[in-house]
Amino acid sequence: MLALEGVFMIPPMIIAAVLHERASVISFAETIAFCFLLGAGGIILKADFNKVYAKEGYVTVALAWIVLSVVGALPFYLSGSIPNYIDALFECISGFTTTGATALTDIEALPRSMQYWRCFTNWLGGMGVLIFIIAVMPRSADSGTGLHIMKAESPGPSVAKLVPKMRSNARILYTIYIVMTVIMTGLLIIFDMPVFDAVCISFGTAGTGGIGVLADSCASYTVAQQIIITVFMILFGISFSMYFLLLSGDLKAFFLDEESLTYLAIIAVSILIIMFDLRHIYPHYDEALHKAAFHVGSIISSSGFTTTDYNLWPGLSKTVIILLMFIGACAGSTGGGLKVSRIIILFKSTRLAIRKMIHPKSVKQMRISGKIISGDIARGVRVYVGIYSLIFAFSLILISVDNLDFTTNFTAVSAALNNVAPGLGAVGPAGNFSGYSVFSKLVLGADMLIGRLEIFPVLLLFSPATWRKAR
Amino acid sequence: MLALEGVFMIPPMIIAAVLHERASVISFAETIAFCFLLGAGGIILKADFNKVYAKEGYVTVALAWIVLSVVGALPFYLSGSIPNYIDALFECISGFTTTGATALTDIEALPRSMQYWRCFTNWLGGMGVLIFIIAVMPRSADSGTGLHIMKAESPGPSVAKLVPKMRSNARILYTIYIVMTVIMTGLLIIFDMPVFDAVCISFGTAGTGGIGVLADSCASYTVAQQIIITVFMILFGISFSMYFLLLSGDLKAFFLDEESLTYLAIIAVSILIIMFDLRHIYPHYDEALHKAAFHVGSIISSSGFTTTDYNLWPGLSKTVIILLMFIGACAGSTGGGLKVSRIIILFKSTRLAIRKMIHPKSVKQMRISGKIISGDIARGVRVYVGIYSLIFAFSLILISVDNLDFTTNFTAVSAALNNVAPGLGAVGPAGNFSGYSVFSKLVLGADMLIGRLEIFPVLLLFSPATWRKAR
Repeated sequence: MLALEGVFMIPPMIIAAVLHERASVISFAETIAFCFLLGAGGIILKADFNKVYAKEGYVTVALAWIVLSVVGALPFYLSGSIPNYIDALFECISGFTTTGATALTDIEALPRSMQYWRCFTNWLGGMGVLIFIIAVMPRSADSGTGLHIMKAESPGPSVAKLVPKMRSNARILYTIYIVMTVIMTGLLIIFDMPVFDAVCISFGTAGTGGIGVLADSCASYTVAQQIIITVFMILFGISFSMYFLLLSGDLKAFFLDEESLTYLAIIAVSILIIMFDLRHIYPHYDEALHKAAFHVGSIISSSGFTTTDYNLWPGLSKTVIILLMFIGACAGSTGGGLKVSRIIILFKSTRLAIRKMIHPKSVKQMRISGKIISGDIARGVRVYVGIYSLIFAFSLILISVDNLDFTTNFTAVSAALNNVAPGLGAVGPAGNFSGYSVFSKLVLGADMLIGRLEIFPVLLLFSPATWRKAR
Repeated sequence: MLALEGVFMIPPMIIAAVLHERASVISFAETIAFCFLLGAGGIILKADFNKVYAKEGYVTVALAWIVLSVVGALPFYLSGSIPNYIDALFECISGFTTTGATALTDIEALPRSMQYWRCFTNWLGGMGVLIFIIAVMPRSADSGTGLHIMKAESPGPSVAKLVPKMRSNARILYTIYIVMTVIMTGLLIIFDMPVFDAVCISFGTAGTGGIGVLADSCASYTVAQQIIITVFMILFGISFSMYFLLLSGDLKAFFLDEESLTYLAIIAVSILIIMFDLRHIYPHYDEALHKAAFHVGSIISSSGFTTTDYNLWPGLSKTVIILLMFIGACAGSTGGGLKVSRIIILFKSTRLAIRKMIHPKSVKQMRISGKIISGDIARGVRVYVGIYSLIFAFSLILISVDNLDFTTNFTAVSAALNNVAPGLGAVGPAGNFSGYSVFSKLVLGADMLIGRLEIFPVLLLFSPATWRKAR
């Protein structure tokens, strides 16, 4: 894994070399050497990890993400681009977890190679979750436990069915990811975006991370470019297995998928509400539509790109934006948040419980896209949301020590845990996370990891029972 | 029920007559006549309601609360004390649900009889929940459904065991309620509070509603009086069955009750955190302790009395206060919020699920105070919290149309749904709910009812299935 990270650091090193960013070249070279050294050590030790069960799989992933972030932050720090290592770490976790939050006050001052590395961590992080789900999980799925969570997460096309040929499927999904990123880059270049920007923005969009290269995020791009970004942000928030179904010609399954339809319906309704709310701010309805669509797409897919400071929007729009953060994208996409499928399951299980109160003998079952969802899965989702709320409340207490206002604290935790990036108040589109102390940055960094890895891996890492049995 | 309300309106009418508040006397007399007229009609029709099942019980309660509020608001409106009927209704719902929120800018301008009626609705509302649980539920419990929710709510001394002699138990609990109110009134009078204030404040404390008679809530009372209020706010947040156990000499059960202990532990920790956070604001630790204890007691018990504007406190204290709103008091008390027992069940069921992930064959069961909590109960609590969150989010969208800031909107919904009363921002201790539109006041009024009746009754009222079968 570290060797792989080393390989991925070669392109930014080349960029640094071409652009004569001397300190950056050296820092990348040092980190790459370090990666290969440790990576080689890891490959030799690999034999030990042949038998990866559910628990070990989870813990490995959580540890791997932490190591990747710790090492990935080295170039920023060694080159002096980010003089404080904790800030560099915050930036790197924010990149890998596709949050895209920054504590830097001037991102344009970074060398280009560093900007490339930031955006690339976004892209890698987006695919990373797929690696986690598709590549690591099959092994755990064999032991029968991991499967349970996978089912809860991807109720669309049942993941269970793909298990026998999981690896070839994973390769198809990777290909889709790369092809979509390339198409987007191409389109942006056709519409006159500089090549460097186009590549970086596509990385940020594909990973739904929202790291760009300009201080104003996407505000200075043309309307056509912003529309392309809007469309792709929304597309990258749909489960990748949907595109697989589309490519295999199963149009019916594609158009009847309840999660994707709900996702698109939520987007449509939110755009309409915000358009209505912005009617006094943007007198022309096409501008209101454009701004509303961009930000709804950006927030629900957890990208976090912005074209304007929605802190200045009226209350209704802001509330919708905050709620969209929690809803998040579809399961199986690169997006964050609670995921639309979890919201659907929560909603349906609640409706079922009410029906059971009225008709105690009712044996009605929950169905999503026509498939029966077992009580176990629904319970798993509720437990997930329960832990999520506890972590949310606990983080909120920890970071409010810094004495920022409640809106800022609330949306900062929400932005970190849902991997969105900008919040409201001081962490809004016009602000950044530099107002927080080192301690709060570490808390928020942990939240980003927890949100990205969907809680359980990180939780297991800190559970004493994990280590007791692991020995 | 209406006849009963008519009876309860006689004392304020007498107060009005004694104090020569002419408009008030007439308005109370009119409302009382109206109550008896409708009440008499109801008694004649009573025969129809002999068979009250779970569903009908719920619906009856929900309807009764709405009717009580609609009628209870009449004196305010008819006397001209509150010229707008919606404001009067808001005030009355706020009273009966023991929320204590006000949209009035100057409560001291109200005639004394109206002030008495406001405080008394608080007291009645506090007992009302006990009426609901103890008096209405036994009938539903017979049908086997209502019992399920009761168990989830009162995991301390199992309610199921009390069923056979429920009515005599209810009488004992009423007696405790009245005796505690009288003791508190007596203590306040001994410590030099005017009799009228002492009675009203005791009503507000007993019902954990927090309606007082002064514009500054409790700030102008003496330290000794504030300490009495603090202690009783906390006491009224403990399950009443605990006092029953105490009176029956079962000290062991009293001291080992997990909910009460957790409740007291949360209070202690919160006081310490806030004391620490306020060390720069109140240089003397005894003042910081005093202020912290008063507000922690006031918020967790959902009373909502204040002695200072905690809007001006640092971020950490404000976050703790907001979280305390959600936690709420113990089940079986007059307090609001999610209830400590639900939080315990949520926490324990989450821990159980994590353990099950690590040891798939674990058969460990959840225990509270040594008693096993079934999976059904835990699921019921999670469904409850799920619906609660949906209602919260929906209300937040609806009231944010008024374009107040996020902190105000968030805490306004939280204060209404948890029956606390003051929030932060514009609805903080120094503010009130008058900034909201008529529409938002109705939404918040509905939230108060939903919070007070614990969701299900109100939800059933609006469920088409209820009416379909009811015919």
